[in-house]
Amino acid sequence: MSAAHRIGHAGLRARVMSPEDAAGLIASGSTVGMSGFTGSGYPKRVPLALARRIEAEQAAGRPFRVRIWTGASTGPELDGALAKADGIEYRLPYNSDPIAREKINSGRMHYVDMHLSQVAPVAWQGFLGPLDTALVEVSGITEDGDLIPSTSVGNNKTWLERAGQVILEVNRWQSEALHGMHDIYYGAALPPNRVPIPLVRPDQRIGQPTFRCDLDKVVAVVETDAPDRNQPFSTPDAVAEAIAGHLLAFFRHEVARGRLPASLLPLQSGVGNVANAVLAGLMDAPFDTLTAYTEVIQDGMLDLLESGKLSLASATSLSLSPAAVERFNRDAARFRDRVILRPQEISNHPELVRRLGCLAMNGLIEADIYGNVNSTHVMGSRIQNGIGGSGDFARNAYVSIFMTPSTAKGGAISAIVPKVSHVDHIAQDVQVLVTEHGLADLRGLAPRQRARAIIDTCAHPDYRPALVDYLERAEAGSFGGHTPTLLGEAFAWHRRFIETGSMRPADGGAR
Amino acid sequence: MSAAHRIGHAGLRARVMSPEDAAGLIASGSTVGMSGFTGSGYPKRVPLALARRIEAEQAAGRPFRVRIWTGASTGPELDGALAKADGIEYRLPYNSDPIAREKINSGRMHYVDMHLSQVAPVAWQGFLGPLDTALVEVSGITEDGDLIPSTSVGNNKTWLERAGQVILEVNRWQSEALHGMHDIYYGAALPPNRVPIPLVRPDQRIGQPTFRCDLDKVVAVVETDAPDRNQPFSTPDAVAEAIAGHLLAFFRHEVARGRLPASLLPLQSGVGNVANAVLAGLMDAPFDTLTAYTEVIQDGMLDLLESGKLSLASATSLSLSPAAVERFNRDAARFRDRVILRPQEISNHPELVRRLGCLAMNGLIEADIYGNVNSTHVMGSRIQNGIGGSGDFARNAYVSIFMTPSTAKGGAISAIVPKVSHVDHIAQDVQVLVTEHGLADLRGLAPRQRARAIIDTCAHPDYRPALVDYLERAEAGSFGGHTPTLLGEAFAWHRRFIETGSMRPADGGAR
Repeated sequence: MSAAHRIGHAGLRARVMSPEDAAGLIASGSTVGMSGFTGSGYPKRVPLALARRIEAEQAAGRPFRVRIWTGASTGPELDGALAKADGIEYRLPYNSDPIAREKINSGRMHYVDMHLSQVAPVAWQGFLGPLDTALVEVSGITEDGDLIPSTSVGNNKTWLERAGQVILEVNRWQSEALHGMHDIYYGAALPPNRVPIPLVRPDQRIGQPTFRCDLDKVVAVVETDAPDRNQPFSTPDAVAEAIAGHLLAFFRHEVARGRLPASLLPLQSGVGNVANAVLAGLMDAPFDTLTAYTEVIQDGMLDLLESGKLSLASATSLSLSPAAVERFNRDAARFRDRVILRPQEISNHPELVRRLGCLAMNGLIEADIYGNVNSTHVMGSRIQNGIGGSGDFARNAYVSIFMTPSTAKGGAISAIVPKVSHVDHIAQDVQVLVTEHGLADLRGLAPRQRARAIIDTCAHPDYRPALVDYLERAEAGSFGGHTPTLLGEAFAWHRRFIETGSMRPADGGAR
Repeated sequence: MSAAHRIGHAGLRARVMSPEDAAGLIASGSTVGMSGFTGSGYPKRVPLALARRIEAEQAAGRPFRVRIWTGASTGPELDGALAKADGIEYRLPYNSDPIAREKINSGRMHYVDMHLSQVAPVAWQGFLGPLDTALVEVSGITEDGDLIPSTSVGNNKTWLERAGQVILEVNRWQSEALHGMHDIYYGAALPPNRVPIPLVRPDQRIGQPTFRCDLDKVVAVVETDAPDRNQPFSTPDAVAEAIAGHLLAFFRHEVARGRLPASLLPLQSGVGNVANAVLAGLMDAPFDTLTAYTEVIQDGMLDLLESGKLSLASATSLSLSPAAVERFNRDAARFRDRVILRPQEISNHPELVRRLGCLAMNGLIEADIYGNVNSTHVMGSRIQNGIGGSGDFARNAYVSIFMTPSTAKGGAISAIVPKVSHVDHIAQDVQVLVTEHGLADLRGLAPRQRARAIIDTCAHPDYRPALVDYLERAEAGSFGGHTPTLLGEAFAWHRRFIETGSMRPADGGAR
């Protein structure tokens, strides 16, 4: 398969150039909207060339930094390389790169952690300033110059529309069978011209399979042949399986009570070990014709699709292990009718999440006894990744579920604390909390009822006595009694961890 | 005007009884869905009779408590009387009654503080249990038995549909001209059967002017002749006027930059002194054909409607001063075409707030230097009222604005603190923060940038040096540098207030 084959449009073929030449078209201080979502579909050669250019410029005493907008996380060739070069002045809306994380937490990079559904509308609102360049990976260009999206859609539609100039990376590594899998909705507008989004089922297509692009804006086309940052899949461990077991029992219970349909409602599933365990558990669960309306399609969803348990998955990105990518690329034509990739504005849209009634399943860093959730800030100050789409889904879900092992760092950290050190999801948006010890159904409970349910059901037994002790003393000595809180020791556990490396009291146990 | 005139349906006229007899139909331990939103349209005689019955039962050694669901806040005849009788076991979704507040904060009443748009859907989901009785004030009953709503709509449609039995209070005090002002949407459903809500402009009617009701369920009709809890209007003070001035300057600036239309976008306005000052300021501002898509219509909006500056106001409730009520009742026929009262599920619907692009203006208790907002919990534990609709609007608004005087209690409390003691609105949902000292446009800023903007612009000058000092020490000594935080002293200001009655340091000043 030749690269030229992927570039059907003659005029764009004439604009093929080296990544170095393309990177030379990006000015210092400018804003670049890049493709990429959960390590998929991000540009791979031009960011590396840009990083080299930045290093050379800086070595010559000429400051060079850019402002980067993306869909969500990218890969080491983008965030890693540019952050290593100290080339990112400002970054939105999500990052999971370890080098960029370090720059952010050391105060050397401004990072704006956003609700992922809001990025495209906000770019249109204009207050973020102009978008100078769109740098977007595509899997091909048609003869007519339409762009065939890659393994993620993200904000690419908006970047292509808003940017002053466009640089395309045509990645021949991506499967040609991606063509037809995307649904790019062109009905969005700014108020007062917004209209209902005409989607009422996850399997519905409301757009077109390709991006439109003003070809006069395309200043460079770069040929790429490189895989996404696909990470190996780790088999769920016993803790993840226990969490999945509690959650599946809850679903069965809700179906039995008539509170969920037998095919459940569209699943939204975060990424990672626990999420994969839930998906694996669904393989054997008594629910059929499931659907997913989510951000990311990961390995577990592929299995469900193949088995037929999952009739359709709608997302904005594919985030698969190398083995699953191989399987997907081999059988992409088979998956094409049952996978829909949409702009993240649509995959995460509050209007659609609420209408469809998603069952939202997300992870967390810590939850407190009242069910407030911290998804982003270790010890309240150190950003891990970002809020991502969890806020879009949790607030609007039919049932908003958060799942976590009850401890981290070998037991030195309790995932259930007296008070979370940072809040991403307020108690109202956290309806079910699950650890390997059990599932707390918090719906309709008042704060003190929630506290008892969370401590008794979700906390690790080693930490329960200390949590009960805190709650009882807070009930006796708090300023107000609605949400009893002892401000003087609300963060004592976090402080102990920072000082000693463990949240456990000095005597070696919380008892 | 006779009460009988208000009860057009002969069968229901035959069910007229005393409030005492009606209250006798409510069982201990049962759940009652009552009307009422922001002190408007709540039942006034039956709850009083129920409170007397509860007191008598309890005096006789027979425990008697009920579970109360409403639209939002009611009046002293409902929450006040029932709370005083210790008759409320469980209350949702909002309360502003001082006696009920005391019961909640002393741990004697379970209170579930909810996003107001979510109450009706949650009642349909079923996990809150059955609704035994609907107790709803109406302004009349047609010959056909349709119910003419009163001064608030709230969740009444849902209570009437879900309840096992219905008790109606027909309040002849309310203007007959209310008939035709309401728009009751009957297209809501549970997923997977939800469809787009067909509303694209604030002035659109998508429902019908009356409630449907299965008349077989109506077990009692009670005649009432009593006003709502209308509170006197207080003229905005200099602080409120300064806040309004900054906000109006921001709107002019955004229009000049082409980021807002000249008629702005639909206004959502919280209740109170500052909100009224903003509305008063709009009387003289260069914006015409304004619209409001909000929860509550208060005095200031009435003035704007009369002047023609505001072409339409959509809400779920009228909350007016006695003087304004008189004016409204006198001229209700004139207002009828320009006021629409809807179910709170629709007035606050995330789908509609985002589609219409509301400019959300809400108050707060405190904000922190990163722009997290506490709207509900004094010193992190004592509930004041509730989150109300602020979460529905703030997350989905075109611009989410929070407004507050920079201090409270004569300067003893700073509204800007190092870390909020409770979070209702995460930083992502707080885009503009305004005090009498200035307006901080936080859109697109990273946490440390937000902190500088908030301290320099919004904090009271007396507290600025201490905030800067905290921030600088946090930047130097925080565990992570994305959102610098000193966990050991994050709540030191709150603790000092609890201990000394003032957030100011012991030396009498923060300098």
